[in-house]
Amino acid sequence: MNVLLVHAHPEPKSLSGSLKTFSVKRLEKAGHVVQVSDLYAMRWKAALDAHDSLDRQSWQPDRRFDPALDSGRAFENGQQSKDIALEQDKLRWADAVILQFPLWWFSMPAILKGWVERVYAYGFAYGVGEHSDARWGDRYGEGTLAGKRAMLIVTAGGWESHYGPRGINGPMDDVLFPIQHGMLYYPGFDVLPPFVIYRTSRIDEARFSKICDALGQRLDDLWKTAPIPFRPQNAGAYEIPALTLRPEISPGQSGFAAHVA
Amino acid sequence: MNVLLVHAHPEPKSLSGSLKTFSVKRLEKAGHVVQVSDLYAMRWKAALDAHDSLDRQSWQPDRRFDPALDSGRAFENGQQSKDIALEQDKLRWADAVILQFPLWWFSMPAILKGWVERVYAYGFAYGVGEHSDARWGDRYGEGTLAGKRAMLIVTAGGWESHYGPRGINGPMDDVLFPIQHGMLYYPGFDVLPPFVIYRTSRIDEARFSKICDALGQRLDDLWKTAPIPFRPQNAGAYEIPALTLRPEISPGQSGFAAHVA
Repeated sequence: MNVLLVHAHPEPKSLSGSLKTFSVKRLEKAGHVVQVSDLYAMRWKAALDAHDSLDRQSWQPDRRFDPALDSGRAFENGQQSKDIALEQDKLRWADAVILQFPLWWFSMPAILKGWVERVYAYGFAYGVGEHSDARWGDRYGEGTLAGKRAMLIVTAGGWESHYGPRGINGPMDDVLFPIQHGMLYYPGFDVLPPFVIYRTSRIDEARFSKICDALGQRLDDLWKTAPIPFRPQNAGAYEIPALTLRPEISPGQSGFAAHVA
Repeated sequence: MNVLLVHAHPEPKSLSGSLKTFSVKRLEKAGHVVQVSDLYAMRWKAALDAHDSLDRQSWQPDRRFDPALDSGRAFENGQQSKDIALEQDKLRWADAVILQFPLWWFSMPAILKGWVERVYAYGFAYGVGEHSDARWGDRYGEGTLAGKRAMLIVTAGGWESHYGPRGINGPMDDVLFPIQHGMLYYPGFDVLPPFVIYRTSRIDEARFSKICDALGQRLDDLWKTAPIPFRPQNAGAYEIPALTLRPEISPGQSGFAAHVA
């Protein structure tokens, strides 16, 4: 199978860097073909702007730039910046996509957020399918990336208890919900449970070896692990166009967890 | 009072851009002094890396760059990149800070995330105060920015119901929790309820005028509005160092909402 690993850490000798190297080797040993988008090494442009379209018209100072409309037009007309089109090609090629990053301020690093913003063009990752009062597009379980698997590998400085059900940072599942549900399930990915490493400043060789064992197992099981059962948008659980859960689905429940079956 | 408005939209003629202009005028009319950090206009560098330190030693290819340790050293030694130090000065100067941005993929734009990552140096916004098994630093209600107020102004394309208690995107309070609690309350800000505008593609002059009325009122009340009552870390609600809520606090409750009194 084809695996795209998107990696976002400025230091190759970091824990994140080591886990990237380990993951690539493990996947290749299992016979998969791996491509790595090492965003810092690629000097990935993080900020979405008018220059993401090759259409010089977009750059006119008197023209109003619209992030959604302009990305959609460039996507349709083959006028996207080359770095964006290349990443979209990798996503089409991949059977599974791994995002690997340190948790910075309870989200992904800016450079990776900018990868999502720029690569996820209108017409590619959103604005896909019929949009009407009866159907709100192909998203949340449908879309361009449906049939592919995605998984996060996340390193966090805090303790596991800090991210527990009653931990001060909030539960890790909730911290990652905007990414796993909002950025991965949205354009169609089946999202596997994340692989999270806590307390990253306290890792000796013995612990690193244990982490590699556990991560290796998760990579071996990439096509066996059951995805998080997020509720698809267009299979009856939601009222359309309000897009609220029907009363009989998770009755009385609210918040992120209600969107997991 | 002194207000810092941090603005992240690539198009001055956008709704976000218009709301920025309106906010500055309204605040100045009320007698406040306003500074604007217009991140796109400033061509803000989004990606945190070794070049954030002026200390050329950090740039040696054989040296291992550590995002936390290196930012802490540069902060202490006056070796921070000038753009970072300038933003820290603005934060020290401000009595209130407003972050104003479009919600892209359920979070802030990459350029603003990169502002947080680079300006929030170790020793400035984290790693502040005693860190031991008895005290886990000055954070979540204490810290460098304590005594200052912060507020989000957010524009979202989706409907309000999509972000309601049972809406498909998750409740807006939860979507914003990693920002409001994790990026603003963490270094000490009192965080006011956010000002959120939904369905931004459907705004005519009448609606824009109504939005300005409501936003203007919120800006007039900047020093009167009660902050979100997040629970301070070091006032007894949490076990230390596990940093989980004590059993008698929000008994039986878990998730983000448990951290609001």
